[in-house]
Formats: sequence, C-alpha cells, structure tokens
Amino acid sequence: MKTLAQIKQPMIGLFNLPVVLVTCTDDKGSANIIPLGWVGGVCSSPPQIALGIRPSRYSYNLIKKSGEFVVNIPCVDLVKEVDKCGFCSGRNTDKFERFHLTPLPASKVSSPLIKECPVNLECRLRHFLSLGSHGLFIGEIVAVQADKELVREDGEINYSCLKPLYLRHDEYCGPSEPVGYYGFTKFRERVVNKVF
Amino acid sequence: MKTLAQIKQPMIGLFNLPVVLVTCTDDKGSANIIPLGWVGGVCSSPPQIALGIRPSRYSYNLIKKSGEFVVNIPCVDLVKEVDKCGFCSGRNTDKFERFHLTPLPASKVSSPLIKECPVNLECRLRHFLSLGSHGLFIGEIVAVQADKELVREDGEINYSCLKPLYLRHDEYCGPSEPVGYYGFTKFRERVVNKVF
Repeated sequence: MKTLAQIKQPMIGLFNLPVVLVTCTDDKGSANIIPLGWVGGVCSSPPQIALGIRPSRYSYNLIKKSGEFVVNIPCVDLVKEVDKCGFCSGRNTDKFERFHLTPLPASKVSSPLIKECPVNLECRLRHFLSLGSHGLFIGEIVAVQADKELVREDGEINYSCLKPLYLRHDEYCGPSEPVGYYGFTKFRERVVNKVF
Repeated sequence: MKTLAQIKQPMIGLFNLPVVLVTCTDDKGSANIIPLGWVGGVCSSPPQIALGIRPSRYSYNLIKKSGEFVVNIPCVDLVKEVDKCGFCSGRNTDKFERFHLTPLPASKVSSPLIKECPVNLECRLRHFLSLGSHGLFIGEIVAVQADKELVREDGEINYSCLKPLYLRHDEYCGPSEPVGYYGFTKFRERVVNKVF
C-alpha cells in the first residue's frame, strides 16, 4: 500500500514548472534577459502574471524602477539559450548579443520582445511584495505578440503548433502529446481558448 | 522572415502551465478539491506558492477563512480526475467520494492530502490580494509529503521518476523526455535539487 513520507526541508516541490525569458531595460534603454521558473498566471481579467525574482539579480531593480517587463515564452529549441542566460549577469553581459537573440520593439512597453520566442507578453508592474529570498512582481499583460504564422483567422493563437519547454523540477523537458483538453471529460467538443 | 503580430485581446498566453489539485476545508472539517492552472512558485525561502482563484469558486472563501490549503500535484494518470473536479462544485459534491480520491491527514494543516498525488505541499496563507477576476493567495509551504518510494536516501524527492501533467494552454499534456537539466550548458555534473 502506498504511503507518504515527510520531506526534511519544506520547498516548492512543483515538478511541472513553466520556464520563461523575461526582458527589461535600464534607464538608458539597454535591455537584459533573465530566465525564470518562479512564474505563474494569477488573474484572467485584467490578465496578470506573477514573477519571483531574487534581489541580487540585475533585473530586480530594473523592473522595480521601470515598472515594466516582457514575458517571452521559449519553445524547446531555445533550451540552451534559456540555460545559458541564467549563468551570466546583465551587469556585464549583453545577453542578446552573446546568445544571438534578436530584440524587437514592443508595442506598449519599452522593454524588447525576443523574436525567437513565439509568444511574448508585454507587462506593466501592478503590485510588488517582498516575500523573503525573492520579490513578487505582479504584472498586468497589456499586449500580446505572437508569431504571425501562429495566429488564426479569428485573431487567437493556435497553441497546438507549439512545442513547449517546461521544468520537471530541475530538468528541462520538451513537448509531448496531448492527453486531453480542458473539459474533455464533460463536453464532446473542445472549447478553444477557454478562459480559466 | 519571421514577424510578430499583436493579439486582439491581452490574455495570459503561457502554454506550459502547471496544473494542480488544491484541497481545503470548511469550518466543519469537510474537504473540497479545486483544480488550478493559475499557480506558480514565487519564493524559495521561506518557500511560497501563488494561486489565483475566482471569488465565485467554493474554495475561495474556505481558504480565506481557514488560512490554509494543500497543493497536491497530480501526474498524468490523474488527468480525468483533474478535469472532472473542475466541472462540479464542492457546495453540493464530495469530490473525494465522487472521483474515488483518498484523503490522508496532513502533518501541519487540517486540509487533507490526496493520496493519489505523489507530491503534496501543505501551505499556510501568508498574503491575499484581490486582483480583479481572481484573488491572489500566497501560501507558505510548511511541510511537504511525497510517496515514500520517491524519497531518496538523502531525504530529497527523486523527481526523475515522476510523469508530470502540464497544460499547453487548454490541452493537458503528459510527460516527455528531458532535454537538459538546470546548468547543463555550464557544468559537467548535474546539480541535483538546485534551488532557483
């Protein structure tokens, strides 16, 4: 019979974590990139996303000062760039140049989008809370940019073409086949782009 | 050349979302289960997790009143139960009974663990913020319970045995092969259970 055991040290045991590349800018307009696993959607309307960032990270004060950032969502083909971006600092490295990533202008914020990421969420900082080892940044998503070829005729994103990258704790995992869709046990037809 | 297009309506475009089953209890000790995709780790120390829940959901006030909850992390074998739990209400349904899930006592909170979930995070509510369509609940993880067979000799979880379930937007996706580990572009050896 299955039994549970208590783990010595409480920690965030999520083993299906998203991984994203967040861009932000300093007061001279120079952009930085920080890969984050402490990220999650938290509100549908107005759409808001939560980030956890350590105060020692270069991006922490950039976002606090500028009040904006972009959440760029990489697919599996960018796994090396995602990993590499976490092991150097924007204080002395231009990560766009070093890792051959392409900045594109955003529509509503001054931080750049990463062209190599198929979906990019432009955010304005709405709330900040100091939590301990990390600061909590809640951003409102004010615009979304996606690869033109991913956008359907109705103007929505066709997510089914995407090959997501996620973390099984500390392992990067690539895409897999769907095993159902939201509502598949209840409805015969899929409710596309259902808002949770 | 790849170009980006703006999406009509800003929304949370994350397509590598975790999915979890959150348990909570009413003042008589009856437990409920709510599946959530608006969830993310936000702080390593003390470990904290963020949930976004609509005020209309039965669990919203249960958690506000009790000040605690458990984040139970399902694997792919529970995809049907996860989906079904979202399409009925704890106001008139005992979801444990209806979906044949087994409550187990937690160690530090009164909400039960779900035995069928391999990792369970016991949380105490630390912060609450009303964001709009959803309330933000920040819980501190005060204890972690995992399947005994997943726990290594050093007392840590062996995540590599787990078959995660995540959402590609509105599609449930099952496990896939790892394509790297945190630090794989930098180190020769894997840093197991690296804290971000």
